[in-house]
Amino acid sequence: MAIPNSPSIDGQRLIADLKRIAEFGRYKTGVHRPCLSPQDMQSRHWLMERMKDAGLEPVIDGIGNVIGRSSAPGPKLLLGSHTDTQPQGGWLDGVMGVIYGLEVARALKEAGVPFGVDVASWADEEGHFGAFTGSRSFVGELSDAEIAAAKHREDGTPLTEALQQAGLAGKPRLAIEPERYRGYVEAHIEQGGYLEQEKKRIGVVTAIVGIFQYRISFAGQQNHAGTTPMHLRKDAAQALFRLCTAINDAFPAVAGPRSVWTVGRVQIHPGAPAIVPGAAEMILQFRDEQREVMERMEAALMHLVAAAQADGPCGIEIETLSRTFPTVMDGAFQDAIEAAARLRAPDTWMRMPSAAGHDAQIIAHKLPAAMLFVPSIGGISHHYSEDTSEADILLGCQVLADAVAAILKG
Amino acid sequence: MAIPNSPSIDGQRLIADLKRIAEFGRYKTGVHRPCLSPQDMQSRHWLMERMKDAGLEPVIDGIGNVIGRSSAPGPKLLLGSHTDTQPQGGWLDGVMGVIYGLEVARALKEAGVPFGVDVASWADEEGHFGAFTGSRSFVGELSDAEIAAAKHREDGTPLTEALQQAGLAGKPRLAIEPERYRGYVEAHIEQGGYLEQEKKRIGVVTAIVGIFQYRISFAGQQNHAGTTPMHLRKDAAQALFRLCTAINDAFPAVAGPRSVWTVGRVQIHPGAPAIVPGAAEMILQFRDEQREVMERMEAALMHLVAAAQADGPCGIEIETLSRTFPTVMDGAFQDAIEAAARLRAPDTWMRMPSAAGHDAQIIAHKLPAAMLFVPSIGGISHHYSEDTSEADILLGCQVLADAVAAILKG
Repeated sequence: MAIPNSPSIDGQRLIADLKRIAEFGRYKTGVHRPCLSPQDMQSRHWLMERMKDAGLEPVIDGIGNVIGRSSAPGPKLLLGSHTDTQPQGGWLDGVMGVIYGLEVARALKEAGVPFGVDVASWADEEGHFGAFTGSRSFVGELSDAEIAAAKHREDGTPLTEALQQAGLAGKPRLAIEPERYRGYVEAHIEQGGYLEQEKKRIGVVTAIVGIFQYRISFAGQQNHAGTTPMHLRKDAAQALFRLCTAINDAFPAVAGPRSVWTVGRVQIHPGAPAIVPGAAEMILQFRDEQREVMERMEAALMHLVAAAQADGPCGIEIETLSRTFPTVMDGAFQDAIEAAARLRAPDTWMRMPSAAGHDAQIIAHKLPAAMLFVPSIGGISHHYSEDTSEADILLGCQVLADAVAAILKG
Repeated sequence: MAIPNSPSIDGQRLIADLKRIAEFGRYKTGVHRPCLSPQDMQSRHWLMERMKDAGLEPVIDGIGNVIGRSSAPGPKLLLGSHTDTQPQGGWLDGVMGVIYGLEVARALKEAGVPFGVDVASWADEEGHFGAFTGSRSFVGELSDAEIAAAKHREDGTPLTEALQQAGLAGKPRLAIEPERYRGYVEAHIEQGGYLEQEKKRIGVVTAIVGIFQYRISFAGQQNHAGTTPMHLRKDAAQALFRLCTAINDAFPAVAGPRSVWTVGRVQIHPGAPAIVPGAAEMILQFRDEQREVMERMEAALMHLVAAAQADGPCGIEIETLSRTFPTVMDGAFQDAIEAAARLRAPDTWMRMPSAAGHDAQIIAHKLPAAMLFVPSIGGISHHYSEDTSEADILLGCQVLADAVAAILKG
């Protein structure tokens, strides 16, 4: 269906670009492209070339953000997402939103829309060195001191060293020019199963959940697993297991109906079958749409940690790694996306919250922001088998292009 | 104090050998020398040279066992322990028993005792590739099929590959000649705090605890930590935490007063904070002096695993890695060690069980076997800070030499 005076995306070009960038760090049917890795840097430089081809002026900054700037006159929208991935992650999370931005820029230009878009790939959305490192830098919420202190969550590499190796040391960091933009729109795969379950193809995001994340460390006494009587042990792993179970038992009473909590990372030291673990560490995160619910969960967590410390033999320390609050999306932008979806995908769109965190929640500190979702097959994400049907990928980009054109014209 | 017609150990020579072999894989004040590592192989070849110097004929076999054989006529005792270590382990566990054997062989020869000892360093006592791999091979309890299937518990390297890299592939495996030996005596650090607590310097071991060891694997569904509702999750890590807590809650009712149980190794996959773990694995072991107690604990474990599988969303598999039963030490050998201790360390010896597993429990399948303990400072072992006072190291070796001479003469 042709919409008069609207940009038309080139589906073949879009899919080709998505497939090409998936080659950087390909892992099985997905991608392993952690931020600032050689594969990530190669993909960023490739992206900059494609931006140039599209008539955008690309810049990479001192934290790894890539922004392709439009030279068109008048109001502009900022479109984007992130090109870094989870370890052994999927091929669309979140590079789809970046390539959508590129394709929309090309389609607007080809349709003769007199305004432009800037396209961004934010660094480290997946949080290997912190949380939303790139978008926080862009809105002025990342200090030099934080950069100096940041380390890779797995191998402990300092962020400064990773930036050096990536060839970014000494480059200036880009800062937002709020007066340049009408706002920010980010497209992303849903990463859950709601759209699929409801047989919808486009999600108009109403709000992004908040995420609180903590590192909890247990200090016990390493010893021989045969000769140390149970009552004299200070077993750091057992203290960790017990706290996790206590959290699972206590959280349902204070959480909201859509709250989620996860212990995704655990380390036991030294990790040998015949040694009582002397140290252990876990990372806990929880999410909800409501700030009050999150604060209730945090209070319960602090209470459980204090009780475990008081009742058990191990020292327990809890460190807050990040605290991002729920973010409501811009109402007018939501309406524009909905209007485009009504035309392109009648009866197959819905409004929904985002249960995952996104750069849009950071950019929203400075600009009106909105998000558009396409379905994830089987609700699977953060796994190399993550996928979205090609028809849905094409539809999502066209709806985004229509919405962007409407916002810029409006 | 001089005992007439008894061998006298050379303390300086003993300590010098212990300090020299500790250089192979030195880690802080301890040693990191896992079986078949380059450091382990270097230490074995060094040991063979020292055996030659002592007049023993050294052989290394196709599993890594080193045995120095005596050419003396008449009845012989087999002395030994293991020279491989825990990761970042101590400098005496169990190389002290091997170097004791070497020193006793030298002292017997110098004292003109007409009989001899063979000295053994068993491969892989610390169980990187299984359990008591070397001593089980020696007594004929390790099949070629088991060797072909064995893998390193941490990095998955096949044992056959490790043997190849160590230059041992194709070598024959030594088999026990029971008629050659009166029996087997192994000296070792206690690895616990009982001797120190009781202000004793020599432990005459009455029995070695049994150890049952299991791998428990949890199969869940890897997914995004934000978009997967709690009630739909199959979180493998949470299933693991819950089972560990259930074991801790249930075991005291079925265990004996000295039973111990340990989860020393845990792996969570993929191990990222924002991913619901799809797979998890733990190694559980427990120990007791009584077989009936161990069988009660095993039954309770199987019941808990079945209940967790029935009640939870994850698949759970339990694999028995090893099952060694408690072993009573030879009565006459115990008496000989006690008699020597009464003379050399009046009032500072005691009879006691071994809470750790040792090669002696394997050799006991074929020969009368006994063990002698020296104190561990602070009860610490399986850690680089493990230590024993020099006076206790010297005393232990002299008591062993006296006991060996008495057994051989008797």
